Amino acid sequence: MSALRTLSRRTATSSSRLISSRFVPVSPLSRRTFSVSASKMGLFDGIEPSAPSIKTEIPGPKAKEQIADLDKVFDTRALNMLTDYKASIGNYIADPDGNVLLDVPALGNFPPNDWAEVLRSGILKVAPKGLDQVFTAMAGSDANETAYKAAFMWKRQQQRGGHHVEFTEEELTSSMNNQSPGASELSILSFRTAFHGRLFGSLSTTRSKPIHKLDIPAFDWPQATFPLLKYPLEEHVEENRKAEQDSLAEVEHLIQTWHLPPCAVIVEPIQSEGGDNHASPEFFRGLRELTKKHGVLLIVDEVQTGVGATGKFWAHDHWDLPSPPDMVTFSKKAQTAGYYYGNPELRPNKPYRQFNTWMGDPARAILFRAIVEEIEKHDLVSQTARVGDYLYGKLAALGEKYPGQFSNLRGKGQGTFIAFDNPKRDEFVKKAKSFGINIGGSGASAVRLRPMLTFEEKHADILVEALEKIVNSL
Amino acid sequence: MSALRTLSRRTATSSSRLISSRFVPVSPLSRRTFSVSASKMGLFDGIEPSAPSIKTEIPGPKAKEQIADLDKVFDTRALNMLTDYKASIGNYIADPDGNVLLDVPALGNFPPNDWAEVLRSGILKVAPKGLDQVFTAMAGSDANETAYKAAFMWKRQQQRGGHHVEFTEEELTSSMNNQSPGASELSILSFRTAFHGRLFGSLSTTRSKPIHKLDIPAFDWPQATFPLLKYPLEEHVEENRKAEQDSLAEVEHLIQTWHLPPCAVIVEPIQSEGGDNHASPEFFRGLRELTKKHGVLLIVDEVQTGVGATGKFWAHDHWDLPSPPDMVTFSKKAQTAGYYYGNPELRPNKPYRQFNTWMGDPARAILFRAIVEEIEKHDLVSQTARVGDYLYGKLAALGEKYPGQFSNLRGKGQGTFIAFDNPKRDEFVKKAKSFGINIGGSGASAVRLRPMLTFEEKHADILVEALEKIVNSL
Repeated sequence: MSALRTLSRRTATSSSRLISSRFVPVSPLSRRTFSVSASKMGLFDGIEPSAPSIKTEIPGPKAKEQIADLDKVFDTRALNMLTDYKASIGNYIADPDGNVLLDVPALGNFPPNDWAEVLRSGILKVAPKGLDQVFTAMAGSDANETAYKAAFMWKRQQQRGGHHVEFTEEELTSSMNNQSPGASELSILSFRTAFHGRLFGSLSTTRSKPIHKLDIPAFDWPQATFPLLKYPLEEHVEENRKAEQDSLAEVEHLIQTWHLPPCAVIVEPIQSEGGDNHASPEFFRGLRELTKKHGVLLIVDEVQTGVGATGKFWAHDHWDLPSPPDMVTFSKKAQTAGYYYGNPELRPNKPYRQFNTWMGDPARAILFRAIVEEIEKHDLVSQTARVGDYLYGKLAALGEKYPGQFSNLRGKGQGTFIAFDNPKRDEFVKKAKSFGINIGGSGASAVRLRPMLTFEEKHADILVEALEKIVNSL
Repeated sequence: MSALRTLSRRTATSSSRLISSRFVPVSPLSRRTFSVSASKMGLFDGIEPSAPSIKTEIPGPKAKEQIADLDKVFDTRALNMLTDYKASIGNYIADPDGNVLLDVPALGNFPPNDWAEVLRSGILKVAPKGLDQVFTAMAGSDANETAYKAAFMWKRQQQRGGHHVEFTEEELTSSMNNQSPGASELSILSFRTAFHGRLFGSLSTTRSKPIHKLDIPAFDWPQATFPLLKYPLEEHVEENRKAEQDSLAEVEHLIQTWHLPPCAVIVEPIQSEGGDNHASPEFFRGLRELTKKHGVLLIVDEVQTGVGATGKFWAHDHWDLPSPPDMVTFSKKAQTAGYYYGNPELRPNKPYRQFNTWMGDPARAILFRAIVEEIEKHDLVSQTARVGDYLYGKLAALGEKYPGQFSNLRGKGQGTFIAFDNPKRDEFVKKAKSFGINIGGSGASAVRLRPMLTFEEKHADILVEALEKIVNSL
């Protein structure tokens, strides 16, 4: 658990620089007794330096080396000063070369000097194959929206003729008025019954339920039908194949004809909020091919499916793609959020185009690293695959015993990411509590299972026994 | 520092429920030795219960009482189960009535049972006058965007004839296609040179620099001119008054004529990213009057100005408003984010319209509470007002000694939220580091000061001495 001890130390350390940036120290305060009034004696007297101290140019040799290293995995062009937060105190900010400055600005641009190492040993250690860089964000919605922003910038740069082509005066001016050509007239294509978040851009791609969308202005972006597979799969092979082919044809048609041309397609490996809708690996390989063919990015939204629940670390690991997705977004179980990418052209051509004050949360990034360590140490992804198979088998048996009560059972081979439909779903979910089971629904009629990665066969037994009681009580 | 100890305890406790919701416990893990393989022995054997245990209906009497209390300050309609995280362990989730359930769902809806108390003793303790409720968010961008969403829903509910009027079939259907009437054709009015965030809705109201906006699709929302005051203020009284009146007239014209009618006006007390642009309290009182007159909400964006830097806890405390803003957004120094509101009609008429998995971050809310405690204990807002006046006086003197080098000095009486223009601003800011000063810019030519709340007269002396050296070196 040393990573978590690190986290708790980091949290304390970073709490000690009252009260400016995301790193706020507190430990020095706790060492003092405040027996005199604050106006007479300074809060950091005897603890902070009495003056700045400059030892090298800034950035100095150590900082330069560490910045070059960080830049390999994280865009550093908005970096102002690489910061040694452990050596920063009170009103003073320190760098890795021992320079100590009086700190008067407001904002970020000051990544901790071990940020590259935190990323490499955590978030990037589990990066999807082929994607070696990350943009960190706060939660799923902004992970997706910053991925969309990267997609728009990438496509417009291509249309302009490359990274090096400067913006025109007309683009600069019109952008300030929210008009084209500065504000692009491109779109993001998503699928019906998809869920990608609740802010204005992400909500425009969310198509799960009216309650999320009503009254909120939306972009006129296109949606394709997600293949609605029939179960059991082995009884509907041809029908399902056709549904997937039709969906891909619709995607292609929209890419070619929509009045605001899509620069990216976003898709969930398993539509979660929309009702636990699955599609086959063939479908996703087809989608990868199609988007490549038309110069459109493929963004895989693993906010809900990522980090082990499907019996692979990333759900799209099940697909055996010929080339990786262009971006993969993550959040939830990761406890931090962001998007992975590999193509260096997805870094916008200038700094500050893709930027914000916090750029994610280092404390949460360290927590994710600790989670990754725990997952590896206890082989929890394999466990989830194993327990998922066990649970699926029990549920299939239950479905035969109670026809119509566990219909459209889905998620075979997808770890514990299992769901079924029940005709009295809402009552089912509500009653579950009285039998000691905390369970949720998705879509219109699905009961979905989302146990933790520590879920074992014995928990599956308790669950299945309770599910039978619930059904008998309905 | 007991609040911070609480935080660190909380972080540890909440790290112990691997690996599902925002609260993830870890302490039980650290108590175990993993000498046997995970597949043979469960991770929580001997620590978690062996089965669920139901003692009351759910919610039970204690939970009901606490939910009613929480609902006074925080929308609880999406609450699934009030959770006792200290008693939750492994795969089991507990409630305040002693019920312990096997935990299988994915998502939030499970606020900790002391959430009302955490809010009241922290975020709400410093709520702006007249605003007694809060919606918590992750960062400034989504604080503003969720406030916009609340504004759109509020206005459309009014137009429909009230909270109780159901959505029409046409609204439900069109919303899923991103079309009106389901997706409303309303807007948010912001000011030129404003900054309100970088996601799709907030970026549509941001008007500070093209680099933030280029290539990103934007809503066709209106912008009014922010009054550009001339300095020194006492030499431009009539001119400045006219600039403010013209701005208000433009706002009124846009409210009455824009093709997508504004349902809210958002404004920063001091335009920060846009160049530290100030306006008078009269201007803001006029804006409050105007928005009231036209049934438009006033959202005050205190993301950068809030939490003490202006010598008042909230910058809009300087205005002496006849009635409070409808919403006040916060982030940055608060280390958590969200919006305050008072009018119960700003709670949407149905649950899940304004919702997300994390709804902010309880650990950060506790950190903000600790910051509030420190601020109060050391009277840091008064200190900032006092040190700000001292610093402003020194800078004014410096301005007289070096004409043209500290021009348009602004922020008198606004704590340490002080800025001036320098003809070689970028070089100024860059050179500052070599004199031991970490300082930033805003807008086209402003050097802006954003010291911490712990900044004292002695730090001001160091700063002023260095500024003189910087100017002499340019």
